[in-house]
Amino acid sequence: MYRSRLLAPGPVAVPQAVLEVLARPAVHHRTSAFRETLVRVRERLADLLQVPGDDVLVVGGSGTTAFEAALLAAVPAGSTVVVAHAGKFGERWARMARAFGYTVHEVEAPWGAVLDPDAVAGALRDHPATAALLLTHSETSTGALHDLEAIAGAARAVLPDVLVVVDAVTSAGAVELRPHAWDVDAVVAGSQKGVMLPPGLGYAWLSQRAWARAPQGTRVPSFTLDLHAERPRQRQGDTGATPSVPLVLALEVALDMILAQGMEARWREKALLNEAVLGGAAAVGYAPFAARPSPAVAALLTPDGISAKAVTRAMLARGIRIGGGQDAYAERMIRPSVLGDADAFDALTIVAALEAALVDLGATVAVGEGVAAAQRLLLTA
Amino acid sequence: MYRSRLLAPGPVAVPQAVLEVLARPAVHHRTSAFRETLVRVRERLADLLQVPGDDVLVVGGSGTTAFEAALLAAVPAGSTVVVAHAGKFGERWARMARAFGYTVHEVEAPWGAVLDPDAVAGALRDHPATAALLLTHSETSTGALHDLEAIAGAARAVLPDVLVVVDAVTSAGAVELRPHAWDVDAVVAGSQKGVMLPPGLGYAWLSQRAWARAPQGTRVPSFTLDLHAERPRQRQGDTGATPSVPLVLALEVALDMILAQGMEARWREKALLNEAVLGGAAAVGYAPFAARPSPAVAALLTPDGISAKAVTRAMLARGIRIGGGQDAYAERMIRPSVLGDADAFDALTIVAALEAALVDLGATVAVGEGVAAAQRLLLTA
Repeated sequence: MYRSRLLAPGPVAVPQAVLEVLARPAVHHRTSAFRETLVRVRERLADLLQVPGDDVLVVGGSGTTAFEAALLAAVPAGSTVVVAHAGKFGERWARMARAFGYTVHEVEAPWGAVLDPDAVAGALRDHPATAALLLTHSETSTGALHDLEAIAGAARAVLPDVLVVVDAVTSAGAVELRPHAWDVDAVVAGSQKGVMLPPGLGYAWLSQRAWARAPQGTRVPSFTLDLHAERPRQRQGDTGATPSVPLVLALEVALDMILAQGMEARWREKALLNEAVLGGAAAVGYAPFAARPSPAVAALLTPDGISAKAVTRAMLARGIRIGGGQDAYAERMIRPSVLGDADAFDALTIVAALEAALVDLGATVAVGEGVAAAQRLLLTA
Repeated sequence: MYRSRLLAPGPVAVPQAVLEVLARPAVHHRTSAFRETLVRVRERLADLLQVPGDDVLVVGGSGTTAFEAALLAAVPAGSTVVVAHAGKFGERWARMARAFGYTVHEVEAPWGAVLDPDAVAGALRDHPATAALLLTHSETSTGALHDLEAIAGAARAVLPDVLVVVDAVTSAGAVELRPHAWDVDAVVAGSQKGVMLPPGLGYAWLSQRAWARAPQGTRVPSFTLDLHAERPRQRQGDTGATPSVPLVLALEVALDMILAQGMEARWREKALLNEAVLGGAAAVGYAPFAARPSPAVAALLTPDGISAKAVTRAMLARGIRIGGGQDAYAERMIRPSVLGDADAFDALTIVAALEAALVDLGATVAVGEGVAAAQRLLLTA
C-alpha cells in the first residue's frame, strides 16, 4: 500500500505547516491584519528574488498570468520583442507576445540545448528597435537551465536599454537567481513551484527601468492585470480585486521556511538533490536530457524500448506522480522533480521508483545500482 | 531541509485521510450517528483480529490500559498466572499482575531470544493451578516475534482450560495473528500502532471461554475498565464514559484502509518492508538483534564503537524519528519501524538514513550498499 507523493516540477508537495494555514477559517481581506500580511509577504518575496525594495506584486492566477501582467506593464504596446526559446515554455511567450500584437522575432535552440548568448545578441543586433527580450530561465519542458546572467549581459551589451523579461517560474526559489545583480528587468513565477504552495498565485517583480519605461496610464490592455494600477495599492497591502487570502497567508509561512534556510543553502540543496536523481537514474539506463540541467526538474529519456507513459503509469501505481514528456517527447521523456517540499530521501525515492518501474515493465535492470549511485552523490557531496 | 518522518514502532505515521477525520468539528457521542459508527468500528476490529462476532471492546487509554482491562475481566482475582517474557513489555505484565495481587510465576528467555513453547509448558506443569498464561506476541523492546500459535498450543496441551492472554500491541494489524484459530483467549492492542492512529485508544477482544470464566459482577477492581459492564453497552454503540470521539471516527477510516488491502496482503507487505530494513542495515554494519524478527520493528545493534543514541540523534537531524534501545540496550540498540503508514520507499529511507548516520558519525561505511541491498530485497520478493 503506497503513500501518495507529488514529485512533479509543479504542482509540488506542500509542507504540513503551510497546509495547516490553508485550513484556517476565512479572514477578510479588507482588514489591517491582512494588509499587514500582504506587505510582509511582498517584502519576503523581494528577499526570495534578491531584489531591493517592495516592488514584487502578487497576482491571482499562475506564473503565466504574472508573465502576461509583467509583459503588459513593462513593454509598450506595438513594440518589437525578441523571444529566445528552446522548449515549450519559451515558445509560449512568443505566442503570448503575438497575441498582444507585439512584433516578435525568435531566437531558437533545440529542445534540451541552452540558448547561446551570442545568438541572442545577434538577434538584437539584427533588430535594433527591440524593446524587450523575453526568455525562460529554467525551461521546465526540457530540464535545461539557461545562463541568464550571460544572456542578459550579452543583450545589454548590444542594446543597453533593452528590457529583459524573464520567466523564472521554476527557477525562483530553487535555482540561483539574482535579477538585480544581473540587471534583469522583470521576473515572474507562480505559487505552485519553488515556494511550495498550491496553485493560484503568481508574482512579478519589475525593475526601476521597467516601471519607468511604460508610463502609467493608457497602454495596458487589461483591467485586473494592470500592475501600474496595482502597484500603489499593494504598497498599502491592498489589492484591486479580491486576492486568494489563504494562499497569501500560506505564502508568508512558506517564505519564512525558505528564507530561514537561506537562499544560497537552498539553491545548493536543490542542485544536489537533482544531481542525485539524474545520476541515480542514469545508473539504471535513463539518460539525462538537458545540456545544462536545471535543479528544478530532472528531464530524463527512458531507456530504448521503454515508453515514458508506461514509466509514469508504473510510478503512479507506486503512489508517485511525476511529470511526463511534452509534445515530441511525450513517449520518451519523464520529468520527476524535487522542486517542492522534497528532501534527500525523496530524491532517493524517485530513483528507487524509477528502478521499480523498469522491473515492472520487464526491462533488464541492475536493481539497486541506481539508489546506490544516488546515495553516493547525496552523502559525499 | 528535511521533512519530518515518524518511523518508530509506535507512535506511528498517520495517513492523511485519517488526519482529515481528526480535524472535523466535534460530534456528540450520545447520538445514533456515533453509536452506529462505534458498532461498525467494533465489527471491523473483529475483522482485523480475525475473530468472530462483535466482542472487541474499545477502551480509552493505550494498549497497556486494554491489557489491564482484559486481565481484570478474564482472570479472577487471587488466581495464579504464568507470565512468559523475553523483553521489557513482557516484564511489564508480570509487574501488572503482581500489582493486582495475582500469584505470578515467570518464564524468562533472554532479550532477543524467542520463548520456548516447551519451557512455557513446563512452567504450567509445575504450576497446575495456573488460571492464565500472559505473554507478548511481538516484543517491541527486542524486535522478536514469539510463536504464539505454538506457545498457546503447548500451554493448552498441559492445561486445557488455561486462559491465554496476549499483548498483541505491535502485532495486531501488522503480523499474522489468528487468536480464534490459535485458541487464544484475550488479545489487546492500542491505536498508535498497526491501525495507524494517534495514541489514545486501546482495544481488547476476549474469547467465549474468557467471558465465561469470570462471571460478571463483583470481581473487577475497576469502575471504568470493567469490560463486563462495558460489553452490553458497546453492543449498542454506547460507552460507560465519554469515548475519544475523533479517534473512534478516525479508526473506522483507518480500518477500512487496512481491510481493503486485506490482512494477509498487509502481513506480507510489513514483513517484506521490515526484511528490507534489516537486510539493508546489515549491509552497512548494523546487526539484526532478534532471533525471529517481528515485522513490526527492526531491532538493530549499532556497529562496534557507534553509540545508538548518537545514531538516533543523527537520524533526527535528518528529520527521522525512530525508537532507541531500552534498558540495558540503550547505548547499543536502535529500533526503526514500518508499522504505521509506511511503504517501500519509507523502508528505503530508513536504510538511507542509517547509512547517513554512520557517515555523520565518522564511521567507515560502504555508502550505497545498504540501500542497494534493501532495494534488491524489495524488488525481487
